[in-house]
Amino acid sequence: MTAIEGLWAVIPAGGAGTRLWPLSRAASPKFLRDLTGTGRSLLQGTYDRLAPLVEDRFLVVTGGAHRDAVAAQLPEVAAASVLAEPSARDSMAAIGLAAALLERTDPDSVMGSFAADHVIADTDGFAACVRTAVEVARGGWLVTLGIEPTFPSSAFGYVHLGAPLEGHEGAFAVREFVEKPSVAVAEEYLATGRFRWNAGMFVVRPTVLLDLLAESDPAFAATLRELAADSSRLAELWPTLPKIALDHAVAEPAAAAGRVATVPASFGWDDIGDFDSLAALLEDEPGTGAPTVLGDAALVQAIASTGLVVPGSGRVVAVIGLEDVVVVDTPDALLVTTRARAQEVKQVVAALRDSQPGLT
Amino acid sequence: MTAIEGLWAVIPAGGAGTRLWPLSRAASPKFLRDLTGTGRSLLQGTYDRLAPLVEDRFLVVTGGAHRDAVAAQLPEVAAASVLAEPSARDSMAAIGLAAALLERTDPDSVMGSFAADHVIADTDGFAACVRTAVEVARGGWLVTLGIEPTFPSSAFGYVHLGAPLEGHEGAFAVREFVEKPSVAVAEEYLATGRFRWNAGMFVVRPTVLLDLLAESDPAFAATLRELAADSSRLAELWPTLPKIALDHAVAEPAAAAGRVATVPASFGWDDIGDFDSLAALLEDEPGTGAPTVLGDAALVQAIASTGLVVPGSGRVVAVIGLEDVVVVDTPDALLVTTRARAQEVKQVVAALRDSQPGLT
Repeated sequence: MTAIEGLWAVIPAGGAGTRLWPLSRAASPKFLRDLTGTGRSLLQGTYDRLAPLVEDRFLVVTGGAHRDAVAAQLPEVAAASVLAEPSARDSMAAIGLAAALLERTDPDSVMGSFAADHVIADTDGFAACVRTAVEVARGGWLVTLGIEPTFPSSAFGYVHLGAPLEGHEGAFAVREFVEKPSVAVAEEYLATGRFRWNAGMFVVRPTVLLDLLAESDPAFAATLRELAADSSRLAELWPTLPKIALDHAVAEPAAAAGRVATVPASFGWDDIGDFDSLAALLEDEPGTGAPTVLGDAALVQAIASTGLVVPGSGRVVAVIGLEDVVVVDTPDALLVTTRARAQEVKQVVAALRDSQPGLT
Repeated sequence: MTAIEGLWAVIPAGGAGTRLWPLSRAASPKFLRDLTGTGRSLLQGTYDRLAPLVEDRFLVVTGGAHRDAVAAQLPEVAAASVLAEPSARDSMAAIGLAAALLERTDPDSVMGSFAADHVIADTDGFAACVRTAVEVARGGWLVTLGIEPTFPSSAFGYVHLGAPLEGHEGAFAVREFVEKPSVAVAEEYLATGRFRWNAGMFVVRPTVLLDLLAESDPAFAATLRELAADSSRLAELWPTLPKIALDHAVAEPAAAAGRVATVPASFGWDDIGDFDSLAALLEDEPGTGAPTVLGDAALVQAIASTGLVVPGSGRVVAVIGLEDVVVVDTPDALLVTTRARAQEVKQVVAALRDSQPGLT
């Protein structure tokens, strides 16, 4: 695999992963955890997937509390390339700051923004998709990777495909981004064959991104460029930036203006939204009548059970007679639920935030 | 409540309580644990129930490994009254040794044998039943307490009532002891109104018990009497004693010979056979839509769940969307099952005995 000239990988490493509690905590979020049993965290998996494409051209943007942990997990990335946000101000500020820095240091570059906590099964398919996206982005488009839906999810936004892009096989104009639909509406989307999941993976020239932002919020773009020119003003200016997602700040208006393209692809993408997703992702052979174990299988004694067991405290975990159960054992907290109820973990975390914040 | 003159309480404290793993372990068995959340172990609860009836007349028979723990839990009982079996040789040897000792030291006494790991709700009802049983026993009967069945259990043996005992209101002759029946047969028993659970609680004069034993196994009775006369021979003679339950060695043949009586009673008896029984015992108000917690309820976060949660390691336990679940959290092992499958815990223990005996 040859690297893609001038491509920078921007990795926003944020988000608590509340629905993956007690594995994921505010102090030790999802992206720092090995959730796939590979021995590498999701962040490291993201690095591993991108390094062949960008060599050493990485910028990681993360919260100040996680800067050291991120740097420790990515010794190959220069310390100066791990940017610490003074506070969380959503994805436009984080990715915009990276864009502004790249605009100054490597003005002809293309940047690809890939979240630190996604999992992708087909690395080659992903690389081919990025390669096409970069070619399109060089022409001034904001390019999003359009994930082939595998089921009518109500948990993701969708990209509505327009006409094929001339001169770029496999790429399409984007008619619009649509918000998370109901399952019924999602089923209609899938039936048309013209909708893809919006996984928030964008490929774009830094200047194009900032200029698009300037069209909707000139002050925001100007402040990002000031910060790139003088990092000493970070503490002063960062708190003034709007808290807004890149999708809303740039992608949606740009799509309406006919400036967004997409490269549809199916490379086995997963954002591991909850333990149900994680169970599906890790499940080798459905119907074996045994739970999937994330961790040391020797610690699990299972009888007539299926689902997901995470023996994360070194203790023996015995599970008897439970279908699609989720048992997550950590040194200071234990979760027992079912795959179907996995979404409700966030309610437990909300309750604990009041009573025992140290556990969240 | 006045004490019953000449009554000795004999407490066999044995049995691992395998189906209550991981709360109950070989090294820390059921009878040493507080399974009812009262702050007193089952052994201590047994002591508390009997002390008003027998004052200081206790004999506790336990395994050598548990002698110190038993003595520590019962500071009111003289150290010499806690007998350590050199090895486990079933209930006839344990209770027979106590009988032989009492025959020498208090020949006119009556002994009542009450297991260390039973729970009784109605202490006054129990006391009244024992009082009647002692009166009958003074007349030379082997008396068993006959528990009113609350459901057609296949887990207990039954006592088949015969004619009322002349001169002893509330007592009956016993026609026979019957082994654990099928549920269908148990239903037939209950329909007759003539069957009671055999809870293994016997009241008898020590000499009567040993003489009954001598009828079926003269050597056994003779050896027990030799041991009582010369305790220095314990290590030598104990291993020669038959391994047999008192029911088989004495109670069944004595019933066939018309020598057994019973005092039927319903005083809320439970032997806490498994976590399903324990859940039923601890359940305050069925249908409240929350699990029963044995331990610190502040550690349990439950959403849309029922059953039994034992937070026994100090960790937070979150349970979401599980009906009749059983979650038992201990410092080195965790059990997750359902009340309906609680019997199968013994399979886990059997598997662990091979792989990780330290946990059993």
